[in-house]
Amino acid sequence: MSGHSVTANASAMTETVIAALVDAIGSGSVLTDPADRARYESDWRNRYSGTASCVVLPRSTAEVAKVMSICYEARVAVVPQGGRTGLVGGAIPQIPSVVISLERMTQIRAFDPLGMTLAVDAGLTLGAARAYAGEHDLALPILIGAEGSAQIGGIIATNAGGSNVLRYGMTRQRVIGLEVVLADGRIWNGMRSVAKDNTGYGLQHLFIGSEGTLGIVTGAVLQLSPAPRGVVTALCPVPSIDAALSVLLKLRAAMPEALVAFEFMSAATVALIASQRPDLAAALAISGESGACLLVECEDFTGTDATQDRMHDALGNALETGEISDALLAQSVAQRDAIWAFREAISFAQNGVGYSVKNDVSVPIGRIPDLLAQGSAAIMAICPDAVPICYGHLGDGNIHFNVSPAVPEASAALQGCEPQINAALADLSEELGGSFSAEHGVGQSKRDSLSRLRSGPELEMMRQIKAALDPLGLMNTGKLL
Amino acid sequence: MSGHSVTANASAMTETVIAALVDAIGSGSVLTDPADRARYESDWRNRYSGTASCVVLPRSTAEVAKVMSICYEARVAVVPQGGRTGLVGGAIPQIPSVVISLERMTQIRAFDPLGMTLAVDAGLTLGAARAYAGEHDLALPILIGAEGSAQIGGIIATNAGGSNVLRYGMTRQRVIGLEVVLADGRIWNGMRSVAKDNTGYGLQHLFIGSEGTLGIVTGAVLQLSPAPRGVVTALCPVPSIDAALSVLLKLRAAMPEALVAFEFMSAATVALIASQRPDLAAALAISGESGACLLVECEDFTGTDATQDRMHDALGNALETGEISDALLAQSVAQRDAIWAFREAISFAQNGVGYSVKNDVSVPIGRIPDLLAQGSAAIMAICPDAVPICYGHLGDGNIHFNVSPAVPEASAALQGCEPQINAALADLSEELGGSFSAEHGVGQSKRDSLSRLRSGPELEMMRQIKAALDPLGLMNTGKLL
Repeated sequence: MSGHSVTANASAMTETVIAALVDAIGSGSVLTDPADRARYESDWRNRYSGTASCVVLPRSTAEVAKVMSICYEARVAVVPQGGRTGLVGGAIPQIPSVVISLERMTQIRAFDPLGMTLAVDAGLTLGAARAYAGEHDLALPILIGAEGSAQIGGIIATNAGGSNVLRYGMTRQRVIGLEVVLADGRIWNGMRSVAKDNTGYGLQHLFIGSEGTLGIVTGAVLQLSPAPRGVVTALCPVPSIDAALSVLLKLRAAMPEALVAFEFMSAATVALIASQRPDLAAALAISGESGACLLVECEDFTGTDATQDRMHDALGNALETGEISDALLAQSVAQRDAIWAFREAISFAQNGVGYSVKNDVSVPIGRIPDLLAQGSAAIMAICPDAVPICYGHLGDGNIHFNVSPAVPEASAALQGCEPQINAALADLSEELGGSFSAEHGVGQSKRDSLSRLRSGPELEMMRQIKAALDPLGLMNTGKLL
Repeated sequence: MSGHSVTANASAMTETVIAALVDAIGSGSVLTDPADRARYESDWRNRYSGTASCVVLPRSTAEVAKVMSICYEARVAVVPQGGRTGLVGGAIPQIPSVVISLERMTQIRAFDPLGMTLAVDAGLTLGAARAYAGEHDLALPILIGAEGSAQIGGIIATNAGGSNVLRYGMTRQRVIGLEVVLADGRIWNGMRSVAKDNTGYGLQHLFIGSEGTLGIVTGAVLQLSPAPRGVVTALCPVPSIDAALSVLLKLRAAMPEALVAFEFMSAATVALIASQRPDLAAALAISGESGACLLVECEDFTGTDATQDRMHDALGNALETGEISDALLAQSVAQRDAIWAFREAISFAQNGVGYSVKNDVSVPIGRIPDLLAQGSAAIMAICPDAVPICYGHLGDGNIHFNVSPAVPEASAALQGCEPQINAALADLSEELGGSFSAEHGVGQSKRDSLSRLRSGPELEMMRQIKAALDPLGLMNTGKLL
């Protein structure tokens, strides 16, 4: 068979599938025009792109099931898609695929204020779910910058982390029920609304973090928690990473039940933000010479000044011992927002100076100084014109080990070194007893690390599970494994 | 082939396997004498018993791997065994099997005070692990009555719950790394010591709660947490289950970050304890007429009276509104111990009045009153001589819906009704949106509920996973699925 006839057959097959999809869920829910498809074919950073033979926009779980059933019968690959805010290309097709976007499935299905549970469609944005909880004096404590775009199904498929994992855990710990459309179109209804359920294998945990390679999450029951009455937020310049760890231990000992965020920004990170967003820096009296900073946040449930007083005491002690060189305790919501805006400006700041490498590793907390020192040395050896931009969730042992070029002109050189840098950081984090992907997942970009750094039995179990649940290999083909 | 020759062959095969096991790990680690085997062949309640063709007592993961490899080659069924404290017969052989007890694997492998992680052998008891954490001013917050016998491997295999799930989650949430010997004897080393690791499928979550049907947990990395500086404990008679829920909401709103236990005991439960342990009741000024009671506990991290004051205020408010009729706030460690001893005396008290049915269901918290009313009515309809003994973790929606005979002479009648009672409670809990096994698992005793109440796709996925990881069906044969 010639290449030409294969293409012709594939194309004819695609036409047949598209016709069946239109027949099943309506032409308004099947995008075939290249202009309409375009935004589903690349990620927000335009780092990954692919081809959607069509994009389907189902309005219900039943419609997702119909779509999956059609694709399964026709042996057509599918890519489930949420808000496309991932960083490893997990939601972008690698081979021409039917892209299934959940963006029209945005209903709140049920809310139980006594049980503090919220059942939602998977296409609802995290921000909308958090707002709904907030309106009912409850919290969905998953704090990521992309909450306005990221969808519940996506954060479940990627087991999103964020800035308060320290207190509330990963997305996994917020999910108590799940609904999944399986590879062959059958629906698994695991939408139970109880936190305790020991009735067989933890299937929901298999789908959480599976990056759309085993099934499509269409609904979830989320465990909410009481909303705090207030938060206490501080920004503290810190002379060294060792000092930062001392402050962490001090705060963890003094107020472990209240500490929700303990974020670190390296001196280079702070200087970069200050150079790109001098307005934000000035508002906080931060300059390019401030050095590394900590962002510390505690939640208060007492409705008194008690939590603020405890944090004040702990930071006062750290000031006296020189573990921090200053402490800006937010005195208003605006000041708190300014502190978080500074922290959230890192992506913007990196974009301002050229190509940026994003990385995300975790190590046992005590190995963080080694990670920073050895990782930076490795990067400089690979790419002398690079600047490590290290920041992240120090309280969890999770560092975003990003890299920017020293000057914009070095962007191309940095881009050329990206695979080597990522491999070096992956190897180092594993050597130090950690993980080469703490939050971001595997997707397209970390598959080589997975196959290099995970053991034979581990990879084989993953492949066995993949083969069991997606025997035709149609679910997000080419991702993760 | 006649039955006799099958038996002869099986027996010869067993002799060959035992010889190979002795050769691999030494005769001192292979128990074949019926007297030596006996204690491994039944559970602590003597409710389940079976036959161990031999009991092996490996001293290391490598020895477990050798044992599994031999059994796999010989197609011999194995039963992994921890402390045998389970309630559903999960650790007792149903068919003649090689029982693998982890009781000799009791080493602490590594302790990281900065990361607050503890790596242990699976045979270490929960009590020993908790004591180790406590000696280092940290906590392993898994609170179950059987901690002196229950082993880490067992509580992981069954995803144990307990009395502070409300604050700390199930055992699943304490496990960040796992080592498992697979069905064919290969070792999966997933002993990572970081809380954040998004590198592929959540394999550890597949083994957690799998009741020894997919592999043998031989080691684990546990996430510890800071030890509280104090606890505040109260015992409160409560006029009704609705009032109890109101108190829960009040405390949850007032001090959600501190509330760790919210336990309920029905009026019949309190009366039963008072009749069987009048000493414990008298010490707390509780009588058979006290009615239902709540046990409430908060942890204090402030080192001041603040937490006690907040609890005092919240309970004072509940007293004023009549939601509780009294409140005994423990004023000493001895008084706290007395309150917990009263709560923990339920099993003893049930044993004192004849046969006891143990059950364990969960429903959304708001459905608890329906569960108690409808469940009790169903039990009385099935067995008029029965008394529901309802108690448990009200804060989690988890009720141990036990049953005792009204008089000891009704024991036989109650025992005869047990399957019907269990089926009725399972059906009811599912009807109310909950689970027929909140903590206890499936084991031998709830397999019929699993197959009756779980959907086709759910059961099929479990079977596919079982077939993928244990293709010969040798792991804890006959349990769970």
